[in-house]
Amino acid sequence: MGPVTFRQRRPLSWGDCDPAGIIFYPTYFRWMDAATWQLLADCGWPADRMRAEHLSIPLLDAQCAFVASPRFGDELEVRSVLARIGRSSFALRHEFVLAGSQELVFARGQESRVWARYQAGPGTPLKGTPVPDALRTALGDPQG
Amino acid sequence: MGPVTFRQRRPLSWGDCDPAGIIFYPTYFRWMDAATWQLLADCGWPADRMRAEHLSIPLLDAQCAFVASPRFGDELEVRSVLARIGRSSFALRHEFVLAGSQELVFARGQESRVWARYQAGPGTPLKGTPVPDALRTALGDPQG
Amino acid sequence: MGPVTFRQRRPLSWGDCDPAGIIFYPTYFRWMDAATWQLLADCGWPADRMRAEHLSIPLLDAQCAFVASPRFGDELEVRSVLARIGRSSFALRHEFVLAGSQELVFARGQESRVWARYQAGPGTPLKGTPVPDALRTALGDPQG
Amino acid sequence: MGPVTFRQRRPLSWGDCDPAGIIFYPTYFRWMDAATWQLLADCGWPADRMRAEHLSIPLLDAQCAFVASPRFGDELEVRSVLARIGRSSFALRHEFVLAGSQELVFARGQESRVWARYQAGPGTPLKGTPVPDALRTALGDPQG
Repeated sequence: MGPVTFRQRRPLSWGDCDPAGIIFYPTYFRWMDAATWQLLADCGWPADRMRAEHLSIPLLDAQCAFVASPRFGDELEVRSVLARIGRSSFALRHEFVLAGSQELVFARGQESRVWARYQAGPGTPLKGTPVPDALRTALGDPQG
Repeated sequence: MGPVTFRQRRPLSWGDCDPAGIIFYPTYFRWMDAATWQLLADCGWPADRMRAEHLSIPLLDAQCAFVASPRFGDELEVRSVLARIGRSSFALRHEFVLAGSQELVFARGQESRVWARYQAGPGTPLKGTPVPDALRTALGDPQG
Repeated sequence: MGPVTFRQRRPLSWGDCDPAGIIFYPTYFRWMDAATWQLLADCGWPADRMRAEHLSIPLLDAQCAFVASPRFGDELEVRSVLARIGRSSFALRHEFVLAGSQELVFARGQESRVWARYQAGPGTPLKGTPVPDALRTALGDPQG
Repeated sequence: MGPVTFRQRRPLSWGDCDPAGIIFYPTYFRWMDAATWQLLADCGWPADRMRAEHLSIPLLDAQCAFVASPRFGDELEVRSVLARIGRSSFALRHEFVLAGSQELVFARGQESRVWARYQAGPGTPLKGTPVPDALRTALGDPQG
């Protein structure tokens, strides 16, 4: 069994576009961040559980390649899938396509993050901690 | 027949919150703007028609009163309804409630806008033009 | 002695503009928020002091009237001044003008806020507490 | 002569931070975009010239590695420098450091862009066009 694909719909709003009438590129990173948190919620770690267990997911790096430019009014589908997982870190690939289309790809991004715990309560320094097995399984990690 | 209520769901994302863990207040205005464009699409004026007909909806003023603070992970419903309509201007009321709740109101906002046309193509000065009758009807204007 | 005017320069960035090539209006509210925190820093309450003393400044309401539209590349000056102050609440007026100009006003906004303390540490509920006299004086409150 | 370093100061605002109290990472990409446009202005291509000559700078890709996390109230310096330049494309490296510090690096990013012209006026498709020699020289391109 391979990695699971998580999907979200995103209409491209007026305010997410720039004077060229197309997506303002940092919007993709905002959406990757939101897609990641939603994916965790879908896997059993919603916001209130993350908060209650003093967990967060700080970034190591993020990147995106831009292939074509959606315009105001387009609806996008964000497809997120596990790209790599280690003991306490993981990477997700996010693909942005025209909703309802199989072929029109707008952008391809990736985020690397740490599964981490606040050491002395919210707002204190974060320290990596092992990714739970149940999360590995939910993400479709073949080694999970 | 009274004004029609338009509804949209909005999950409150991590990046829409501030260090207090609650909504960063300009997010409400971003959502009012997006709700207004979505309402126009629902009424028959989607993005591509607005573009093709050289129409836009510049603001006169906007306001919001904050009653309670949603936190990261809450899902909100935005309820938008016509508050006032003139020859070429209109005001919408936007109410933000906890999705699935009838009672928990987070905020109440209002935007006044002009129905306007670019006088010499996109990006040129905008000039007010009469709100179309079909739009008045779709909004539930009792005089429409 | 009247209220003190606090000034900040803000270039209007590409990403703060919309497909009409002008300011995306929620940007004004982001700038009002930033101007308010900067004003507090100028008055002796910078970020680290606010954090150390468990203080925050939640909003009651915010509004803005839009007079003219700056375009990408314009530099604005934000002029912030005390409009009203009570025991534990205060309102600031923010005026947005073309930098270097006395006359070209783009927008006029106002925010009402509470001077509040987290009751049991950061992220816990906030409760209004009296505005310090030194802050009243720094703001130029005639009753301060 | 090597590449020229362009510098900008950026206070980290309340609204640019997330519930962990640190920078919301897409903020870095917003700042890279703003730094790039400012760099062009410094080199002789300000917003009004870009507009008048129907030029824009669409992205090919963007990335950022996150080393340490600035908090609300920190002031950052963005240092931007040419990383690579071709006939009609160029890449900029952006480094984010604590202002006034030589050593505390928060993040290191890079953007690849095309120097492009709207083929039939603003909002129409963009096509790559040679980077002007005067811009190459201003950027400190050793081949310029």
